[in-house]
Amino acid sequence: MERVLVNGQALDAVATTDRGLLYGDGVFETLAVDAGRPCYWSAHMQRLQSACQLLGLGAPDAAQLWREGLSLIGDRQRAVLKIVITRGPGGRGYRAPESPLPTRILQIHEWPDYSDTCQHDGIRTTLCATRLGRNPSLAGIKHLNRLEQVMARREWDDRTISEGLMLDTGGQLVEGTMSNIFLVTAGTLCTPDLTQCGVAGIMRARVLAIAGQERMEYQVQGISVDDLRQADEVFVCNSLIGIWPVCAVDEQAYVRGTVTTRLQVLLQEDAAARTAR
Amino acid sequence: MERVLVNGQALDAVATTDRGLLYGDGVFETLAVDAGRPCYWSAHMQRLQSACQLLGLGAPDAAQLWREGLSLIGDRQRAVLKIVITRGPGGRGYRAPESPLPTRILQIHEWPDYSDTCQHDGIRTTLCATRLGRNPSLAGIKHLNRLEQVMARREWDDRTISEGLMLDTGGQLVEGTMSNIFLVTAGTLCTPDLTQCGVAGIMRARVLAIAGQERMEYQVQGISVDDLRQADEVFVCNSLIGIWPVCAVDEQAYVRGTVTTRLQVLLQEDAAARTAR
Repeated sequence: MERVLVNGQALDAVATTDRGLLYGDGVFETLAVDAGRPCYWSAHMQRLQSACQLLGLGAPDAAQLWREGLSLIGDRQRAVLKIVITRGPGGRGYRAPESPLPTRILQIHEWPDYSDTCQHDGIRTTLCATRLGRNPSLAGIKHLNRLEQVMARREWDDRTISEGLMLDTGGQLVEGTMSNIFLVTAGTLCTPDLTQCGVAGIMRARVLAIAGQERMEYQVQGISVDDLRQADEVFVCNSLIGIWPVCAVDEQAYVRGTVTTRLQVLLQEDAAARTAR
Repeated sequence: MERVLVNGQALDAVATTDRGLLYGDGVFETLAVDAGRPCYWSAHMQRLQSACQLLGLGAPDAAQLWREGLSLIGDRQRAVLKIVITRGPGGRGYRAPESPLPTRILQIHEWPDYSDTCQHDGIRTTLCATRLGRNPSLAGIKHLNRLEQVMARREWDDRTISEGLMLDTGGQLVEGTMSNIFLVTAGTLCTPDLTQCGVAGIMRARVLAIAGQERMEYQVQGISVDDLRQADEVFVCNSLIGIWPVCAVDEQAYVRGTVTTRLQVLLQEDAAARTAR
């Protein structure tokens, strides 16, 4: 069973002239596969389309990605599907070819061996020294320029720490290296606004949508380290982990609160309903 | 004659698991080849070493790169040698493998067909709308996260415009998409300081070194658009073009001045002396 398709072919390589490699000129999506099907497919496709549009990459063919995704998934029930779209091969220099031939990479990965305690008891995190640069023109996009996350992830080696939290260069809390972050303070849910930097996660959008449906109070706003220190509950989320309560940011402890637990339950119902469709 | 070597092998491909492709987790150098030899080799190697060190990539073997570079150059007299070092293949996720096996890519390209008028009469440029994000932790480094340059280069299609100038998100002038920039104002040479963003070019360093040797007054400092508007002379430089006078930034015209001309002559002597060694 293949593990990688490049432009529909069972190849595990791209040309050294690929602009994804040379400039990070591309975007990606990481999807949970459950019961043999990619979860939140249409949300991922919408985000992929708008990212490609912003970069001028042309609209990827979602039906083709679906077919290729299913062929890679095969009879796997639980897995991770990664989709990468680059501007494809080009000559030397930043100028893109006049008629780019984007490269389409699909990879299937084993489902990560997440401990159940992450869901139940929460995770320990650390506040990273590496900051995120602010740039509204690329903010929100899940593009291939991810050195800041790589550098942040290099900061800790302690396997009991599951995530690193990142501030931007202005000192505002933005996200985890691989997740979005939410705080609950005096009953109000809040998450950093991502107009300056950060990745606008699919799970973040689901949590906000669910909060709206449930008429929970929530705010998308600038969040400082002080706000983080004073929060009653903290959790992180992404497409693979769902919601993980944060039980520690370095030396400061947090307890899993009722809002986090409620959102975990609602998110699980939401995911189950979508898988069943 | 080969055009690409990947880890010393005549392959034109890297694995889809390469972190250079997935995260831009790597660095590069672009060298002019003149009289069959890479120019300013030791300066490029020093910059490559410090970039690799900052990223924790391990020191590349300069002697090996030299041998491989020469084998690609073959009997070419004038060419462009590009060297890319990535953190190599890895699993899914930002965490680097414990023992990374960096990928070493050398590519040889034809010498670009630069018009002589660029050197003599100068080039037209445009001020790009795309801004550079500020992040001191990665500033100066020639890493593979180059989407900002790609987006800026997409802003113009007019072939009479040879370069785009870029501001950072704070509105300071930083560089061209593929070059560093210098102004001459009231006889003083100045170039943007690159502590917040930008690539610390080899040719920029040579120009500063030559200015120092010649006891020319120069300053490395913050430069605003107003400073650019009021400059008497403007030029850009990189390893391939040497120094190109700027004769226009959008509608504003500049003339090639005596400082630019003098530096062009001195830089040509400097390059000739280094090639002869």
